[in-house]
Amino acid sequence: MITDKKYFEKISSSISKYCKQTPSLSSIFINDLCGSDIVFKCENFQITGSFKYRAATNAILNLTDEKRSKGVITHSSGNFAQALACAAKSQNIEAHIVMPENAPAFKKKSVEKYNNNLIQSKPTVKDRENMTRLVLRKNKLSFIHPSNNLDVILGNSTIATELLSNNPNLDFILCPVGGGGLLSGLALSSSALSEKCEVIGVEPINVNDAYRSIISKQIETNKTTNTIADGLRTNLGNINFPIILKHVNKIICVQEEEIIDAMHLIHKELGILVEPSGAVSLAGLLKEKKIFKNKKIAVLISGGNVDPNKLPFN
Amino acid sequence: MITDKKYFEKISSSISKYCKQTPSLSSIFINDLCGSDIVFKCENFQITGSFKYRAATNAILNLTDEKRSKGVITHSSGNFAQALACAAKSQNIEAHIVMPENAPAFKKKSVEKYNNNLIQSKPTVKDRENMTRLVLRKNKLSFIHPSNNLDVILGNSTIATELLSNNPNLDFILCPVGGGGLLSGLALSSSALSEKCEVIGVEPINVNDAYRSIISKQIETNKTTNTIADGLRTNLGNINFPIILKHVNKIICVQEEEIIDAMHLIHKELGILVEPSGAVSLAGLLKEKKIFKNKKIAVLISGGNVDPNKLPFN
Repeated sequence: MITDKKYFEKISSSISKYCKQTPSLSSIFINDLCGSDIVFKCENFQITGSFKYRAATNAILNLTDEKRSKGVITHSSGNFAQALACAAKSQNIEAHIVMPENAPAFKKKSVEKYNNNLIQSKPTVKDRENMTRLVLRKNKLSFIHPSNNLDVILGNSTIATELLSNNPNLDFILCPVGGGGLLSGLALSSSALSEKCEVIGVEPINVNDAYRSIISKQIETNKTTNTIADGLRTNLGNINFPIILKHVNKIICVQEEEIIDAMHLIHKELGILVEPSGAVSLAGLLKEKKIFKNKKIAVLISGGNVDPNKLPFN
Repeated sequence: MITDKKYFEKISSSISKYCKQTPSLSSIFINDLCGSDIVFKCENFQITGSFKYRAATNAILNLTDEKRSKGVITHSSGNFAQALACAAKSQNIEAHIVMPENAPAFKKKSVEKYNNNLIQSKPTVKDRENMTRLVLRKNKLSFIHPSNNLDVILGNSTIATELLSNNPNLDFILCPVGGGGLLSGLALSSSALSEKCEVIGVEPINVNDAYRSIISKQIETNKTTNTIADGLRTNLGNINFPIILKHVNKIICVQEEEIIDAMHLIHKELGILVEPSGAVSLAGLLKEKKIFKNKKIAVLISGGNVDPNKLPFN
């Protein structure tokens, strides 16, 4: 069923009532620089500023009525927290968001725009998980994982569905890899919708668990979370990893300076603000220009949630 | 003829082969701030970074074959220079662009991306005009004025056609006023396409010739060009002014700081870079919030050509 074109178009259509069809941009300068024909798919302009809103929307849409009546919960310090809070509000269901107490104030504020049930936990992932379990059980909530959940993955698949519907001749889609929900989603719909389009992940070399996992064929973890791309510090999951293993052949690893340079180039040439994780795809393209020469490429800008007063370039 | 809906849709359709349907953005924060429902129409994402590309494209499309074979000329230190250079290249005709020798290097570079016929003149407007006349006569070129030309005005009208096709319930369109080509174009199509939508111009108070012209019912000039909104220093013309007089009832005047604040707010909340002239519409809305309370408004972001290293805020 899930290799069928109509299946993916149906998901796109079902979330379209809630999510934006994000615009695509291009730059003659960056095309010339890379020698390729590039479409920048701007999920920074998605509601709540990242692609995660598609995922959260689709996950909520697929709950049973009983589960909807009880509400949802997630733990996240980043874009999924905001996305689930807003998607739940827009579909009139209750959401509980667990965030570590040391999450940046501006991220907490973004969640509070949509939600009164922000719960703060101690900083570690273990603390977050324990707190989530506690609240979940008490309120019989549905837990929605930010990346390792099939409806989340299928929500993300709609980006490639949109891209390939507008650009049927794409040779490649480049996207960042963090928890694997985005990469697996794009790979699923792309393999159903196009015979030639290949989805390639790009990852900070400091947290290159996906790169190593594809080689070893098992889920590897990172020893550090030391990257400016704060959305990409997480690990792959048991639901998205098999999809990645089946459909993805290549992960490009990039250095921190390459991420910052790409962010800067996007700001200068496209005139938009993107978060470090959102610039990683372009960093990968710039790094391996030769592979992409004379090809038609979609570069996924995954999100734009960055503090404009704290840009890592000037 | 030119009060007919189909007439404007035909122009939109004829330029659509060359120009982008620019995306619209919105911000919950700015909506709340103003108490209105706002669509930001992003001509900063138009080809060459401003709405002028629509104007240049339509002007060239309407030349006779004989005139096309000889080529076009304009004088401009700003966005129209770039737009005409690029539109001419894309339609395979020759363009000559006269720019003052003291125009910023980055603007000259932008023209040179598309054009080898950049002619430098001495700094004054008189110098530019004389140089233009000289080259024009020698080569039998068609002169295309950046704002006081009916095909330029009609090219600009396509923005309101797009806006009203996607948002038929608009109460207001706010746009910057410089030479009057944009305001007159939007007012023309808007009055043909909507019974209720009113087009309002916004102007820096330091160069408020349009504000004064509407009151005195004759073309007034400015004593100074002292505004950060470099695209709005020019005066109205004898072709666009009668259209403005007929269809526009209100011009809002804004201070320099209000323009910079609006530019900053757009950067922070929409995540995009706009030039000062492009932020003037929002400055007008913020200044006269009361009029716009609970209304559906399109705020026209006219262009994004600004040096990201020289932003007037931080």
